[in-house]
Amino acid sequence: MPPTDDPPTTDRRPPTTGHVTLVGAGPGDPGLITVAGLEALRNADVVLHDALAPRALLREAPAGAEVRNVGKRAGAHAATQDEIEALMLERARAGKRVVRLKGGDPFVFGRGSEEMRACREAGVPCTVVPGVTSAIGAFAYAGIPVTHRGLSSAFMVINARSMNDGVTSWRAAAEVDTLVLLMGAENLAECAGRLVAEGRAPETPAASVQWGTRPDQRVVTGTLADIADRVAEAGLSAPLVTVVGPVAELAGELAWFDPAPLAGRQIAVTRSRAQSSELVDLLEAEGAFVTETPTIELVSRAGSADLCEAVAAPADWWAFSSANGVHVAMETLTAAGLDSRALAGRRLAAVGEATAAALAGYGLRPDFVPE
Amino acid sequence: MPPTDDPPTTDRRPPTTGHVTLVGAGPGDPGLITVAGLEALRNADVVLHDALAPRALLREAPAGAEVRNVGKRAGAHAATQDEIEALMLERARAGKRVVRLKGGDPFVFGRGSEEMRACREAGVPCTVVPGVTSAIGAFAYAGIPVTHRGLSSAFMVINARSMNDGVTSWRAAAEVDTLVLLMGAENLAECAGRLVAEGRAPETPAASVQWGTRPDQRVVTGTLADIADRVAEAGLSAPLVTVVGPVAELAGELAWFDPAPLAGRQIAVTRSRAQSSELVDLLEAEGAFVTETPTIELVSRAGSADLCEAVAAPADWWAFSSANGVHVAMETLTAAGLDSRALAGRRLAAVGEATAAALAGYGLRPDFVPE
Repeated sequence: MPPTDDPPTTDRRPPTTGHVTLVGAGPGDPGLITVAGLEALRNADVVLHDALAPRALLREAPAGAEVRNVGKRAGAHAATQDEIEALMLERARAGKRVVRLKGGDPFVFGRGSEEMRACREAGVPCTVVPGVTSAIGAFAYAGIPVTHRGLSSAFMVINARSMNDGVTSWRAAAEVDTLVLLMGAENLAECAGRLVAEGRAPETPAASVQWGTRPDQRVVTGTLADIADRVAEAGLSAPLVTVVGPVAELAGELAWFDPAPLAGRQIAVTRSRAQSSELVDLLEAEGAFVTETPTIELVSRAGSADLCEAVAAPADWWAFSSANGVHVAMETLTAAGLDSRALAGRRLAAVGEATAAALAGYGLRPDFVPE
Repeated sequence: MPPTDDPPTTDRRPPTTGHVTLVGAGPGDPGLITVAGLEALRNADVVLHDALAPRALLREAPAGAEVRNVGKRAGAHAATQDEIEALMLERARAGKRVVRLKGGDPFVFGRGSEEMRACREAGVPCTVVPGVTSAIGAFAYAGIPVTHRGLSSAFMVINARSMNDGVTSWRAAAEVDTLVLLMGAENLAECAGRLVAEGRAPETPAASVQWGTRPDQRVVTGTLADIADRVAEAGLSAPLVTVVGPVAELAGELAWFDPAPLAGRQIAVTRSRAQSSELVDLLEAEGAFVTETPTIELVSRAGSADLCEAVAAPADWWAFSSANGVHVAMETLTAAGLDSRALAGRRLAAVGEATAAALAGYGLRPDFVPE
C-alpha cells in the first residue's frame, strides 16, 4: 500500500471565510520554507510578497492566484505599509485566502505583528506560520552557529536602522557574546565604530553574508575593525547580515556550503511555462538567475470533437509521444464517461520513460517503449 | 496536467557515501519543519533524535530506518554527548544517511556546531538544515513578536543555564528591549531576580510558554516581578520559554492559537499500524497524546494463488470493500503481467468514498457506489 505523501501538520482549521496567513519564507533557499508555509501558499487565492521572497516559492501558488510584489524594494511602484495592509484586508474581506509571504520570519523586523494588528482591528482572521530567520539561518550555511559552548551562550539581534527606537544601548550590543546586525549594508562602518567606541575589542572576529543560503551566497570574514572595508572591497551589498563575536571565526573551520557553478549567471528559458518549471528549478539550484520567456504555449484539447472521435475509433494501437498526450487522452476518456477499461484490446506504446511513467499513473503499462 | 508535487528545494547534492544532516525540527508543531528537513528525514537510513523532536515527524522516516531517541531527557539510558557523536560517526562511516533531528534550530543551544566539528575531524560530510527556533516561533503562536516597531528593535536570547560561560552580563540582558530565556523552567525566579537587581523594572511585561506551537501549548502572562510565581501556580514546567519586554503585552491583543479540545488527553489507538497514521495525526492535531497499540496486523495477499485465480475468473462484477482491497487486487494484476485493461467488460463496485478514491487512483471509475 503506498504511504501517504501528505506533509505532517497541525490542523489550523482555517476559516472558510476570507483570512490572512502571515508566512515566513525563510532566508533564501526555497527548501527552507516550512511545510505548513508551503501548504498555505499552495492553497492561496492571493499572495502578497516581499522583494526577498524566493521566486521558486512564488511558482508554488495555484495557477489562478493573484501574485503581487509589494516589497519596499519593488521600485517606483513600491507599496507603502498602509497600502499593503489595505490591499490585504480588501482581498480577505472579499473572501480570499490571502498569504502574506515575507523573507525570514514575519515577527523578526518584518512588521508582521503590525499587519496582524490591522487584521484584528478589521475583524479579519489572521494566523502566523513562523519561518527560519536569516539572523540565524543565513549564518548556518556559512558554518557560523550563533551559540557554541564555551564561545557564546547569548546572542542579540539588532536592526541597524531602528536601533535607537528602543531602550537597548549600543553598550549592551557591544558586550553580548554574539551580535547579529540585520539590514546594515549601508551603515556597517558606523555600527562597527559604535561597538568599538563602547569597548568591544577591534580584533573581535566578524563575518558578513550576502544572499545567505542561496546558491549565490557570498561570505566575507574579518574583524570588527576591518569588516566594513572588506565588505566594501568585495562589493557586497543588501541583503546583508553581519555577525560579530568569536563564533564568526568558526566559519573557517565549519563552512560547508559551496557557491554553485552558475552563480550570478542570467539565463532565459524559452520553454512553455507549464513545462519549464523543472528546468528552472535545476538552473536556479546551480545559482542562475532565470527569466521565463515562453515562446510557445501548450493548450489542452481534451474533449474536443476530433479527439473524442479518435478515442472512440477501434484502433489497434495507441501511441503516446508525451506525458501531456497521455493526460489529455485520459481526460478525454473521462469526459466521454469512460475509464481505462475502455482501452481493453488495444495496445499501448509510449515514447520515453516520462510518457511510460504518465501511463503508469493511470494504472497502465505500455506494451512497447522504443529504445 | 497535474502540477508537480515535488517540494521546491535547492539541490544540496548529498554525497553518495555516508553523511550526517543536522536538521532543525522546529518548536513543536510538526508542520513547522522545513521542506528540506522533511526531505532529509524521508531519505534517512538512521534518525538520531532529541526528546523534543515531534513524534509525528519520526513517523516520516522510511519504514526500515533506525530511529533512536538520544535525548538528554530520555531517562536512564540517555546518551552522553560523546556517545551521540560516536554513534553518529559510526553509522555515517558505515555508509548510512544519518539525520540528527533536533528540536528548534541545530545552531541555537543545540550543540549542532559541536557535532559538525566532530564530523569534520572524522572526515564525515556534514550539512545543516536550519529550523524555526522556539526562541521566536513559540512566541509567535502566543501572539508575541520578538520585535515590533516602537516597542522593540533588538532582542537577545540567553540560555539561563549557561549564561555565565560567555562575556554577556546580566546588566546587558536586563537592558535589551526583548529578552528571551531558554531552558529556564527551574531557575526562572533567580533569573528574574537578577534582571531586577540589574535595573530592569519589575513591572516589565513577561510571558512564559510551555510546549509552544503544540496543541497543548500553555501561556502564562505577568510581569518580571511575578512571572515565576504565576508559572509555578499554573504548574508549567520544561520545555518552557520566557520573554521579558513590552512585546509580551501584545499577547493580550494578538493571541490567535487556541488550545485544542483534546489537549492533554491520553488516547490509545488499536488499529493496525499501517492504517492508524491518519487517525493518529487527527487526534494529535486536537492535542491528544496518542499511543499506538495495534491489535491486528494487515498482511497483503497480493499475488497469492487463490487471488490470482480469482483475478483471472470471468466475474461480471468486482466489488471492493476497502482501499486496501483495491491496492492488493491491482498488485495481483500487475504480478500477473496485466494492467487495468484486463478489467474490460467487468463492472466495478466500491463500498465508500475512500474505496472509490483508491480506484480513481488507478484511472478507474466505479460503476456503483452504495449510498
